[in-house]
Amino acid sequence: MKEEKPEGITVKKEKDFSEWYQQVVLKGGLAEYSAVKGCMIIKPLGYAIWENIQAYFNARLKELKVQNVYFPLFIPESFFRKEAEHAAGFKPEVAWGESEGERLAIRPTSETIMYDAFAKWIRSWRDLPLRINQWCNIVRWETKATRLFLRTREFLWHEGHCVYATEKECEAETLLYLKEYQKLCEEQLAIPVLPGKKTESEKFAGAVYTLSVEGLMPDGRILQLGTSHNLGQGFANAFGIGFLGRDGKKQTPWQNSWGFSTRLIGAIAMMHGDDKGLVLPPMIAPQQICIIPIFFKENKAEILKKAREVAKTLQKFRTLLDESEDYTPGWKFNEYELRGVPLRIEIGPKDIKQKQVVLVRRDTGKKEIVKERDLAKRTEQILADIQKSLYNKAKKFLNSSIVEAKNFREVERAIKEKKIALANWCGSNCEEKVKQLAAKSINMPLSQNTKGTCALCGKAARFKVYLAKSY
Amino acid sequence: MKEEKPEGITVKKEKDFSEWYQQVVLKGGLAEYSAVKGCMIIKPLGYAIWENIQAYFNARLKELKVQNVYFPLFIPESFFRKEAEHAAGFKPEVAWGESEGERLAIRPTSETIMYDAFAKWIRSWRDLPLRINQWCNIVRWETKATRLFLRTREFLWHEGHCVYATEKECEAETLLYLKEYQKLCEEQLAIPVLPGKKTESEKFAGAVYTLSVEGLMPDGRILQLGTSHNLGQGFANAFGIGFLGRDGKKQTPWQNSWGFSTRLIGAIAMMHGDDKGLVLPPMIAPQQICIIPIFFKENKAEILKKAREVAKTLQKFRTLLDESEDYTPGWKFNEYELRGVPLRIEIGPKDIKQKQVVLVRRDTGKKEIVKERDLAKRTEQILADIQKSLYNKAKKFLNSSIVEAKNFREVERAIKEKKIALANWCGSNCEEKVKQLAAKSINMPLSQNTKGTCALCGKAARFKVYLAKSY
Repeated sequence: MKEEKPEGITVKKEKDFSEWYQQVVLKGGLAEYSAVKGCMIIKPLGYAIWENIQAYFNARLKELKVQNVYFPLFIPESFFRKEAEHAAGFKPEVAWGESEGERLAIRPTSETIMYDAFAKWIRSWRDLPLRINQWCNIVRWETKATRLFLRTREFLWHEGHCVYATEKECEAETLLYLKEYQKLCEEQLAIPVLPGKKTESEKFAGAVYTLSVEGLMPDGRILQLGTSHNLGQGFANAFGIGFLGRDGKKQTPWQNSWGFSTRLIGAIAMMHGDDKGLVLPPMIAPQQICIIPIFFKENKAEILKKAREVAKTLQKFRTLLDESEDYTPGWKFNEYELRGVPLRIEIGPKDIKQKQVVLVRRDTGKKEIVKERDLAKRTEQILADIQKSLYNKAKKFLNSSIVEAKNFREVERAIKEKKIALANWCGSNCEEKVKQLAAKSINMPLSQNTKGTCALCGKAARFKVYLAKSY
Repeated sequence: MKEEKPEGITVKKEKDFSEWYQQVVLKGGLAEYSAVKGCMIIKPLGYAIWENIQAYFNARLKELKVQNVYFPLFIPESFFRKEAEHAAGFKPEVAWGESEGERLAIRPTSETIMYDAFAKWIRSWRDLPLRINQWCNIVRWETKATRLFLRTREFLWHEGHCVYATEKECEAETLLYLKEYQKLCEEQLAIPVLPGKKTESEKFAGAVYTLSVEGLMPDGRILQLGTSHNLGQGFANAFGIGFLGRDGKKQTPWQNSWGFSTRLIGAIAMMHGDDKGLVLPPMIAPQQICIIPIFFKENKAEILKKAREVAKTLQKFRTLLDESEDYTPGWKFNEYELRGVPLRIEIGPKDIKQKQVVLVRRDTGKKEIVKERDLAKRTEQILADIQKSLYNKAKKFLNSSIVEAKNFREVERAIKEKKIALANWCGSNCEEKVKQLAAKSINMPLSQNTKGTCALCGKAARFKVYLAKSY
């Protein structure tokens, strides 16, 4: 038996957040860097979280009548040029290949290659709305420093692309998908978000407007978690997408696109992890429960038998029974704590005699002795409570971090204190001033009723806007 | 209401197989060519079949303790060079990018990038066996003519990669995964296969040996459907993968890799389709049943109500109720036939009065009137029977196509007659002679007990081998 502990986290989350994050991702077994600069390897635990997110979201997509497809990785350069703003926005980070004379972009996003096909697929109002999604890899040749899950040259994502007969439908569903992202983040990942509209300078290249959900990470920086773009008719015009209306006349449709990426996995690690490692919300934890039998040679058979019974009792949960004799129970405790398993169940000789087991919550570390007959019910309650507690803690942190700021000095103070400034803004390029503070405009709350003066330049305000440091 | 029929298949499968296949894939809605030469777009129906294959196979992987991961798309050129045979084998078809001085291959397969990481992951016998899989896109810059699903420059696949402490385990599991492929093809896709071992000249670049499952397509050509490679210790040596054994000594492990691709979707279309379009095996059909209510204005409410009841009765199946008024029932019949839905249910005014529905099988076109009370049971029987019938028909075709060939003349005759020649072979490069017939060695049956003389050169035979034309 291996006696030593697995290599734990050696820095405090409070002290050195950046190093702590790196260690939690590496030692928790989520991902690691590969031999190719800026590209990551998503390891089994990280990928299993992604699969759970996919399973949840695919079920939602089905209900929303969105169909999955797969489009080519390569996009002809000429397609990129068709929508001018889009081309300009993505130019710096496209990786290129070449074939038979034309440069081929390695997809940084798929609007152009998809919409070339949509122009052929759509003939009449009968073909609308068209709702398409793909799960795929994306390449953006970042020049900034990369960080696992948060900024890498390749990542995985989903991208939804819809075409509508009317502007109204397009507007409504652009918001609908944002609300789906909010639900995913809050109910599944236990991460509260700020839904809002991006300012003009921060919107997607080629969009009329961009909606986003943004999460506040424990270091006071905002992480963008999902975006939904109303593309208007710009791409439809550029790619010649038209349809015959019910009135027999040729019309131009409206479009949106929307996506989130494996960055969500990084957000989960940052948000809930602690000095012992990952803490995974039960809803998306690949293993919700680990059962650790504590045995010696003389009682091994008896204890394993009981452990298997307990595993069977709990089979409706994602339960792992670790029967291995290669590692000590103590080693296993540490290992599953590092990996963030929400609930640990210990079963030793004393427990068998007393028809009980010991439950240990990962989030609080609290121990609880539960009678076998109550186990299934109590487990369900505890897992639900962990999910709720993680969310409530993060929500409290978010709420306490939003500070109303009436002028630039107050904006500055908020940002220095690692808070989010909620400020009045006139809508002009005075927004640029925030960059002096190494911060930026995050988004503007969805419901707006703004009066007063701009916190940045003193003119009449038109919007409320969140200003903060960001990833 | 749109009165005309959807554009159907305009050639006979018997007459022009190649054109028929293209039309079935395009008009059935599986896939189409994209603007990038040799790259395809997998459309909703094609992708949904892939998702069903993935769901089935992921469940098997879980039982076999294989873990999913994601490795980078880009592979440093230096990695490719490490295993000499592997490098030579893949060189002609690798697409390259470049970054910071080193050429980066766009993955044609992931052995090298994965095994560089495995060398760090594996320390001792405790870490073995390591069983890893990824679902991803693959790029091979084909210069031959491309065909949808069968040969494209980009495709989707899964690749399993395992590392074992002993040669025996490696051998056993290389075969185990092949058997899984056989099960997938035969039980899910209703495609009987020939499992066997590739000859030396046909094995994977870098393998000790390659096992394969091969399907006979209706035009008499063999399509390789999955491969499992015993890699021996070659890659482990090249990438420095070692482990500390239970005896405390440093050892070199054994490895295998195995995969199948979206080519399977093309095989389904080829094998089961007919002159009306696709015929999908119920086990992997995205829609197993389509319900077509036949109504006019005056009885619409009544008939839709019944159709919804029927849909509810059949909810354990993947059932589609088409309530649309934009197309006539006749149009819908043709459309769902094109798309291969295994079973159609028609509900009209007469059926309601008589508490019955009309079932129409896609494979045989046979109509059957079924009382409502028997519907769920009868549907289950018919779907099972369709699955079995498709397999049996294909199996009969395969069996009747295998011809024992004792000499080159008999090999030649078999191949001219679009059959598979089962021939004795000495194991030498006389295998080359088959190329004169535009055919090649497919694989060698797994159990061998060969006597007699080589059909190709007359020397003493060592193996039985399948010879045929192939894709």
